[in-house]
Amino acid sequence: MELHLDRSLKTPLYLQIRNQIRQLILANELSPGFRLPPERKFASTLGVNRTTIVNAYHELEADGLIQSHVGKGTIVSSSLSSTDRFFDHLSGIEDNYGLLPTPVQPMSWQNFYSRQSERMYNPVLASILTEIGEEDQISFALGSPAGEYFPLEEFSQIGQQVISSGNWQAFEYGPTMGHYPLREYIATWLAQRGIHTQAERVMILSGSQQGLDLLAKVFLEPGDYIVMEEPSFLGAIGVFKAAGARILTVPMDQEGLRTDLLEQILARHRPKFIYTLPTFQNPSGHKMSLSRRQELLRLAYQYHIPIVEDDPYSELYYEGKLSPSLKSLDEHEHVIYLGTFSKILFPGLRLGWCVAPPSVLEHLTLAKQHVDLHTSTTTQWMMTEFCQQGLLDQHLIKVRNHYRIQRDTMVSALTKLAPSGLTWSVPEGGYYLWCELPPGMKAATLLTKAAEKKITFVPGNAFFINPGGTDRIRLCFSRHPEATILEGIRRLCEAITEILIQPRPKDKTNRPLFNNPLV
Amino acid sequence: MELHLDRSLKTPLYLQIRNQIRQLILANELSPGFRLPPERKFASTLGVNRTTIVNAYHELEADGLIQSHVGKGTIVSSSLSSTDRFFDHLSGIEDNYGLLPTPVQPMSWQNFYSRQSERMYNPVLASILTEIGEEDQISFALGSPAGEYFPLEEFSQIGQQVISSGNWQAFEYGPTMGHYPLREYIATWLAQRGIHTQAERVMILSGSQQGLDLLAKVFLEPGDYIVMEEPSFLGAIGVFKAAGARILTVPMDQEGLRTDLLEQILARHRPKFIYTLPTFQNPSGHKMSLSRRQELLRLAYQYHIPIVEDDPYSELYYEGKLSPSLKSLDEHEHVIYLGTFSKILFPGLRLGWCVAPPSVLEHLTLAKQHVDLHTSTTTQWMMTEFCQQGLLDQHLIKVRNHYRIQRDTMVSALTKLAPSGLTWSVPEGGYYLWCELPPGMKAATLLTKAAEKKITFVPGNAFFINPGGTDRIRLCFSRHPEATILEGIRRLCEAITEILIQPRPKDKTNRPLFNNPLV
Repeated sequence: MELHLDRSLKTPLYLQIRNQIRQLILANELSPGFRLPPERKFASTLGVNRTTIVNAYHELEADGLIQSHVGKGTIVSSSLSSTDRFFDHLSGIEDNYGLLPTPVQPMSWQNFYSRQSERMYNPVLASILTEIGEEDQISFALGSPAGEYFPLEEFSQIGQQVISSGNWQAFEYGPTMGHYPLREYIATWLAQRGIHTQAERVMILSGSQQGLDLLAKVFLEPGDYIVMEEPSFLGAIGVFKAAGARILTVPMDQEGLRTDLLEQILARHRPKFIYTLPTFQNPSGHKMSLSRRQELLRLAYQYHIPIVEDDPYSELYYEGKLSPSLKSLDEHEHVIYLGTFSKILFPGLRLGWCVAPPSVLEHLTLAKQHVDLHTSTTTQWMMTEFCQQGLLDQHLIKVRNHYRIQRDTMVSALTKLAPSGLTWSVPEGGYYLWCELPPGMKAATLLTKAAEKKITFVPGNAFFINPGGTDRIRLCFSRHPEATILEGIRRLCEAITEILIQPRPKDKTNRPLFNNPLV
Repeated sequence: MELHLDRSLKTPLYLQIRNQIRQLILANELSPGFRLPPERKFASTLGVNRTTIVNAYHELEADGLIQSHVGKGTIVSSSLSSTDRFFDHLSGIEDNYGLLPTPVQPMSWQNFYSRQSERMYNPVLASILTEIGEEDQISFALGSPAGEYFPLEEFSQIGQQVISSGNWQAFEYGPTMGHYPLREYIATWLAQRGIHTQAERVMILSGSQQGLDLLAKVFLEPGDYIVMEEPSFLGAIGVFKAAGARILTVPMDQEGLRTDLLEQILARHRPKFIYTLPTFQNPSGHKMSLSRRQELLRLAYQYHIPIVEDDPYSELYYEGKLSPSLKSLDEHEHVIYLGTFSKILFPGLRLGWCVAPPSVLEHLTLAKQHVDLHTSTTTQWMMTEFCQQGLLDQHLIKVRNHYRIQRDTMVSALTKLAPSGLTWSVPEGGYYLWCELPPGMKAATLLTKAAEKKITFVPGNAFFINPGGTDRIRLCFSRHPEATILEGIRRLCEAITEILIQPRPKDKTNRPLFNNPLV
């Protein structure tokens, strides 16, 4: 009896064992009377605890599929329940189903899900998205722009113009690559940022998250290697893990991804691509230095490895000016560039874009056809009009100023209130402060205490591929006005202080953040 | 030397062979001087034409990776080009890259794509979506509602209300499951249609196409069986094929899917699900009879197989009244139900929904997080307002009437003008006439002739999983006003007549519709 256990799945081992034996019994590959291995022996063969086997057998017995007899061991039942009668039918025994009302058994959905589906469990992302609308708490978790600065008045006029123009094409199906005038606008807009491309090389996405999903579809087989800096964007980690990628990580320092550590990874593993967020990295806030950018490109060229540059934050710089994107430095089309309106304007329209070489765009387009046919025509038309009227650039000037003030507010509140041992980075742009908790304190402990005070954040481990980051937290400063930031930091520091003065709980720091099923 | 050829891929065999040998050479698994098998022998080992091997060797030679010598055969080159010098580096030979400017070779993207990506090629869908906006031709291809009946005035007011309400949450991130008031509205609306559910069981999708993609992610492993009626919706065929599913097909008759042929398939293959479009099926227009619906559910219950009910058209009935959906008849939660606003209101907002048991919804939600985080908040808020004001039901009464007239217009034009041998169905609802061409005529031939006359349609084979449907075409009657329908049918019948009176071309009927790469 050959079973395949996968420890990377969410499904507990005992259920994996139960499900597989169940299938073997139902498919008659284990016949009635077949003796299952003794628990202890089976446990050692499979390399699991004996309890795991006990639990699996217990479930199978509850299903009526096996029976335990003292002295005789555990054997496959000879009389299968009515659920399974159709298998008798298959083996040629006459059955008058359809005449007698057979009780319908509930669906065992758990037996139907794909491995990919099991790999999708991403509790942090889920809880961040669910928290939206919970008004009684201050969230530094969600990385979203400030609603109070949304240009609603301008957008209302734009919407009015687009809808009442009587042009029904704004509500019609559209091309998978996107609304051409918007692609054209983005191409021109990027040119001002040193990325020289054309509308044909720009594809509209339903948010840049979709770009990650499409790239996973187009490039990744389960088991493929990719490279990411660590820590990194949790939405990307989730997608690439779900696709079954093996993620090789490279640490960062103040200058960004440590290219000196990258080369041997590229040489040894030949990854499908390098995913990087070079400017105002999420969550670290790091900005990759120019020499590192050049070195990264050189390595990509040398080893023929594509780079996926995720660039949601580069327009939100609060010191100096725009950094040159990898795409703008790339002379040999190795960079696939992802951009989005979600951080610079508003996220609710779900509009992003991708700039890539023709072959890649063609494959992404074929994938997008299957995924959602195309991005909403209506929102694309509105965004086009908004941009063409020069309102995006105006808005950027405004929010750069606001977010700089908000960052400074958060930093000075921390400087004033932070308990000893709490440290943080001050990024030159983007949305986040990346903080290190006082020695010995775990983000999970703080999250619970902070919840009592109606303040939340993202615990650092969510951004790590390998175990790590449990002593880190990410604070987003973009979302709330100054007064709320001050109040939030006050509550947070209070929570930290209370933990510091509490008697240290014994060995509870490693408990899991979320309730996973436990065997 | 072991090569793996996959005939289901878009990549021609000669390129598959070239790519794999290339990889072996670059990875040093085939050393310089290694003699490749003689062409004829290799061809017979691999079961391909000799030309295929000749082409593959030709490519490798052009890359400088192999050399042909008369008498000596074909051997791996001893001097690899500068492209591949880093492999020398790997094997320990000193290399001063970085000091000498090495010429950067263009990326060989073709070597990076996943198998899934290769399976995504769907030229029909691509061409249908690209044709949008080509104003000079009449298209009966795209299955879209009539733009002239779009309720733009009402929607303009709604848009104005939503945007100018000053509620920035309409532009903010939202929950993955969707905007709660819209889920609530859909639940109530479905109750009037016999589907008794609640907001918690309704999930908003970026069009029902997204539902198909998410279901593929959540349920399908490459090699899994699923069941579809044949012919079926081409967007579904595309997604499930890309996911690597093995599609088992069941034919239909006037009463819909032949449930009498279904049982042995379920018994033998235990598919992951049955995908069906029971009401005004696309492309056949068939409406599954009540007894077949009950029989289908009975079989699903008996064999514990989920049903995916795709139901975009049931509200568009032109005779009698609404048919009971499978979901409304399902007492044991075996049915996953997909609905959409795209056919009943307008498609450009990309809004659909899914009703499913909690476990399935949970898995779909986890998948959707990765795919696009959530559907556009802005369009959801607008749609909610539109529906809550009772405008959807008003709109439906209006379009049912219009589309009935359009269907009748197309049918009577065909009755009047159709050349002998052309036959068609008259569906009780939906969007399509499903036509059989005069004996011997192929849809591909007609498509070319029709293009000359600026009229287009979808050739029948696009809806078939197995080879078939080449003598069928699908005509969509919903999109154009009566005058255009009349003119389109006139052109179409003219094209058919011209082919009928032409001398029959020799053996050209099987040529491929689209330019696939040929070896």
